[in-house]
Amino acid sequence: MNGNCIDVTIEAAAGMLKNADRILILCHGKPDGDTLGSGLAMLRALLSMGKTARIACSDGFPPRYDFLYGDLELGRPEDFEPDFVLAVDVADVKLMGKALARWRERVDLCIDHHMSNMRYARHLLLDSGAAATTELVYLVLEAMGAVIREDVALCLYTGLVTDTGCFRYSNTTSRTLRIAASLLDTGIDSYKVNKRMFETHSLARLRLEQLVLQTLELHCGGRLAILVISQKALEETGVAEEDTEGISTIPRQIEGVELGLALKEQADGRYRISVRTGFACDASAFCEQFGGGGHARAAGCMLKGSLDEVKATLLEAAFTALA
Amino acid sequence: MNGNCIDVTIEAAAGMLKNADRILILCHGKPDGDTLGSGLAMLRALLSMGKTARIACSDGFPPRYDFLYGDLELGRPEDFEPDFVLAVDVADVKLMGKALARWRERVDLCIDHHMSNMRYARHLLLDSGAAATTELVYLVLEAMGAVIREDVALCLYTGLVTDTGCFRYSNTTSRTLRIAASLLDTGIDSYKVNKRMFETHSLARLRLEQLVLQTLELHCGGRLAILVISQKALEETGVAEEDTEGISTIPRQIEGVELGLALKEQADGRYRISVRTGFACDASAFCEQFGGGGHARAAGCMLKGSLDEVKATLLEAAFTALA
Repeated sequence: MNGNCIDVTIEAAAGMLKNADRILILCHGKPDGDTLGSGLAMLRALLSMGKTARIACSDGFPPRYDFLYGDLELGRPEDFEPDFVLAVDVADVKLMGKALARWRERVDLCIDHHMSNMRYARHLLLDSGAAATTELVYLVLEAMGAVIREDVALCLYTGLVTDTGCFRYSNTTSRTLRIAASLLDTGIDSYKVNKRMFETHSLARLRLEQLVLQTLELHCGGRLAILVISQKALEETGVAEEDTEGISTIPRQIEGVELGLALKEQADGRYRISVRTGFACDASAFCEQFGGGGHARAAGCMLKGSLDEVKATLLEAAFTALA
Repeated sequence: MNGNCIDVTIEAAAGMLKNADRILILCHGKPDGDTLGSGLAMLRALLSMGKTARIACSDGFPPRYDFLYGDLELGRPEDFEPDFVLAVDVADVKLMGKALARWRERVDLCIDHHMSNMRYARHLLLDSGAAATTELVYLVLEAMGAVIREDVALCLYTGLVTDTGCFRYSNTTSRTLRIAASLLDTGIDSYKVNKRMFETHSLARLRLEQLVLQTLELHCGGRLAILVISQKALEETGVAEEDTEGISTIPRQIEGVELGLALKEQADGRYRISVRTGFACDASAFCEQFGGGGHARAAGCMLKGSLDEVKATLLEAAFTALA
């Protein structure tokens, strides 16, 4: 935590960006549609205002999102000396990844919607009521007087649908839907985004689902469901990392389940735990006891140990959380 | 077809309902969230205006939707002699079912969004650009000067999400999203609806998915996918009819698939074909050649014959459709 982190309003953030030039935009590692959508929308908008700007992500830009950046010359951020550093959707400097470690102490403005934000930036625009960081980026661009064109709208829309499961999750508000409506009015093909993000799976992914469904266990009288995604299953099906998204929501989808856990074995033997909750408990609080965090209905953490040990640890915590 | 069917505007439909009393509202059989949401929203709004109204559906009101009608005394439509008959989301009198056959020639107003509407009513408010019939019901109620309260909003919202896959499908427009935003502003718990409609499956349903995924076949260079839901699989898993929804979208979700077919064996041995398309062909046109119909991206039809015969028929039609 940084005691000197100053909270700013949308208007103040807009003012800072309006006055800034030579802006470096930082996304979080293992990038998703919200950090990329936020960063690329901001990049496009700033460039169209005649500013110099560059975007950086320690894990690069995945092909899954090439429809957001395919037409851009992204350039090498290493060769760029910025006057202003903006982080989008980055709750913690650790999430920037090693490649961007040199910027950890140098973020001028962070725009984020994670309640767990570590307040590492000089200025912070934080609204945990925003469904996605792109919801805030939209409001900042609007306050900057920017005309939101189709290319920017596509990025913003992608962030909205990524973090709301296409307007399905409890974080979706009427503001989210009205912003989405405005973005559709620019003429973007929203269905192409939805289809790509939610309705396009490889055959390998379907085979993986078949395999992991066999590991499904119910506990706590059917209120807890656990699913295991083993390295073996990943290897057997040859499914790409980016195509495993959404599997973590399966346990919670079972009737009566309030706490859904997906245990994904990592290459180093650790387990990445994806936690999804109904109404009975808080996913972020559940993960915080293991050094993780996130949102009330969706959060994550990492655990070491054998599968049985990890399950036992989680079961004990689940009994308390569901008590 | 009825040459005397008169097309009416939203305002004209609103005027007719404002002047009407003793209104019978008809839903289509095998009711979904759109016909029920439309009918129940209208019923609640008309009752709150002090009118006498009743709702009827030949297949009754499924428990899945009890959150829309649980607090209402629905009464027996058989004991009700109406002065005005309103059909909602009913494209064809055949879809009313036998129990409502006596009303086939007596529908004063039909509100619908199916392009394939058979124009059986005296007056027709048809807008195939509406994502759901509840989108039109919202506009009619607004034109009637009705205050849309939480109970009505819940019904309307349920129709919107049913027919758009929670704002995911290509029929979702900025108007759909803005109406949804207004409905959220009434204070409804939209997430509870979404969770119930899209994120709650029985264990039996997950086992059924496991089984039917084994029947998956790709043809036409991966542009056609076929899935079979056999009576055997339904019996083995004991899955309820209403909990099989959504399985028909699996084939289209595979990368590269433009035409996805789900063949569901009926108790009488016939096959109900659910057709879902990408951008390359029209689902409704595909089904019309077999006496079915629906929308451009989602439609259905029935076929007789052995599984092999049905597959051969569909394959031949698919080759033409994808040519």
